[in-house]
Amino acid sequence: MKMNSLNEIAQYLKNTDNSVILTHRYPDGDTLGSAFALCRALRKLGKKSRVIVNGVLTGKFQYLAKNMDEQNFEYETVIAVDIASTSQLGELEEEFGGKVDVSVDHHGMNMPFAKMTYVNAKAAANTENIYYLIKLLGVEIDRDIADCIYTGLCTDTGCFKFSNVTSDTMRIAADLMDIGCDSALINRVMFDTKSLSRIKIERAVLETLTLHCDNKIAVINTTMAMEKETGAEDSDMDGLAAIPRQIEGVVIGITIKEKGENHFRISVRTVDDYDAAEICKNFGGGGHHAAGGCSIDGTLDEAKSKILEAAERELRK
Amino acid sequence: MKMNSLNEIAQYLKNTDNSVILTHRYPDGDTLGSAFALCRALRKLGKKSRVIVNGVLTGKFQYLAKNMDEQNFEYETVIAVDIASTSQLGELEEEFGGKVDVSVDHHGMNMPFAKMTYVNAKAAANTENIYYLIKLLGVEIDRDIADCIYTGLCTDTGCFKFSNVTSDTMRIAADLMDIGCDSALINRVMFDTKSLSRIKIERAVLETLTLHCDNKIAVINTTMAMEKETGAEDSDMDGLAAIPRQIEGVVIGITIKEKGENHFRISVRTVDDYDAAEICKNFGGGGHHAAGGCSIDGTLDEAKSKILEAAERELRK
Repeated sequence: MKMNSLNEIAQYLKNTDNSVILTHRYPDGDTLGSAFALCRALRKLGKKSRVIVNGVLTGKFQYLAKNMDEQNFEYETVIAVDIASTSQLGELEEEFGGKVDVSVDHHGMNMPFAKMTYVNAKAAANTENIYYLIKLLGVEIDRDIADCIYTGLCTDTGCFKFSNVTSDTMRIAADLMDIGCDSALINRVMFDTKSLSRIKIERAVLETLTLHCDNKIAVINTTMAMEKETGAEDSDMDGLAAIPRQIEGVVIGITIKEKGENHFRISVRTVDDYDAAEICKNFGGGGHHAAGGCSIDGTLDEAKSKILEAAERELRK
Repeated sequence: MKMNSLNEIAQYLKNTDNSVILTHRYPDGDTLGSAFALCRALRKLGKKSRVIVNGVLTGKFQYLAKNMDEQNFEYETVIAVDIASTSQLGELEEEFGGKVDVSVDHHGMNMPFAKMTYVNAKAAANTENIYYLIKLLGVEIDRDIADCIYTGLCTDTGCFKFSNVTSDTMRIAADLMDIGCDSALINRVMFDTKSLSRIKIERAVLETLTLHCDNKIAVINTTMAMEKETGAEDSDMDGLAAIPRQIEGVVIGITIKEKGENHFRISVRTVDDYDAAEICKNFGGGGHHAAGGCSIDGTLDEAKSKILEAAERELRK
């Protein structure tokens, strides 16, 4: 369990084979983009590698895996990408919990769990780290790899909008565009395409909007009934969490999603000095400074008052 | 009326003084960012220069002019930025119509009207051209100029999302971030801040949504009554035009805004091979391939059926 340089990790990967690459639960564009980019790079080195998607590879992410044949082999090397702690392994924890060889991550709150760990919290997306890792592996980045890396960049930054973006993020994106990555199409799919169900559920959640603490905290929620009525699928629910913080003057935006009976998944988004991860840590969650998540059990009212209480504490800090 | 190189324009500007810089009517982030960036640069050369805002400098754009003192002088040089034709001068046409010395623009459909004209239609934003012009003027880009240039980049690209973005756009943005431009704050103000009135009018326009031609064309509209009811101001109306095209499967998105009695301003957004500017040219408007605008007089139903007819023609082409 020691921290390593990216170069040490590259040298290690050059000397190993038969790897599986794990993504975090509720996989997003950055963990998936990291995994498929690295998998493609290792295959270009003649190695066997496959991605283990921690959940479902939803339709809009299918292109990450395009033209990749299935590879069946007994794994020798386990790689974790964009995973801050073993709890984020979810259902994969049982099989892989103590067996991770290499972890490449960008979460400041990373709790090392692998034999070798590289964390660069300045990277807006973990695919920034993967971009440099692939360069150290000596693999030429092709269009398919570029698409995977770009996917992480744009999805973890709200399309280069959030405060985590650095000039490095922009220059990597520029390189990927020169290689021919399909940035415009990826952006359209990720940010500019809404199903009718999505539009309906947006309208429905706006009806639940409440404002607190002099309009500095905004809360919206979804229910399973709402999802059923609007026909919204998981992919329609992505990004709803950005809505409450968008309201003028709001510094903490909270989204409460009913995921099961008396079980709620909560997303917190903050601006300025307010720390989303701190708020979520109260309930065993975590995340980044400006975006965090946690789960709370109880009724909707209970979940809402608990998270509101924690948010108000952060507001007054 | 001839086309010039950017270098010729830089040399001309070095040898002139007392300039006014004109923006296009309904001024947006790109024309304003172009004007204030160039004005600041000319002042750094010791010249007198002022921006003539073609309309109102709304609250969210105030920072473009921060720390700039008023300069009163008789103008000798007239510069137009991000203006494709004299009709876009609007109310400024009467005074400046035949007097424009220099035009720097990025519209492919530019109809030259100035003594010297530089058009680079590959630039996603006109501030890309201004960035290179300022370099040719030998002026060091400071934070304030960087903020102005960045504003054009992000507003004309939907925050680096649209298909007009090039690797050049990204690298210029990276340079501006290294200079210290306040990109995260600008993005938040431009893209992540909605007034409560905005949220209300979004809900209201979604109620007007209609789909046509096998769900390939979507239309929304606003009325003056809607604006009054929701308390929406002009700034709340910006970006509504992006909504209809976002719906899955829609390739032409149309937004009809009632601007006066029997007078409608229409925005068209397209994807793939469909040309928004072509659709709008039917009604004396224009724009880019993926985004165009025009005005139609008549009742709402008449305006809607006219623009729909033109859109259907483009769809079948």
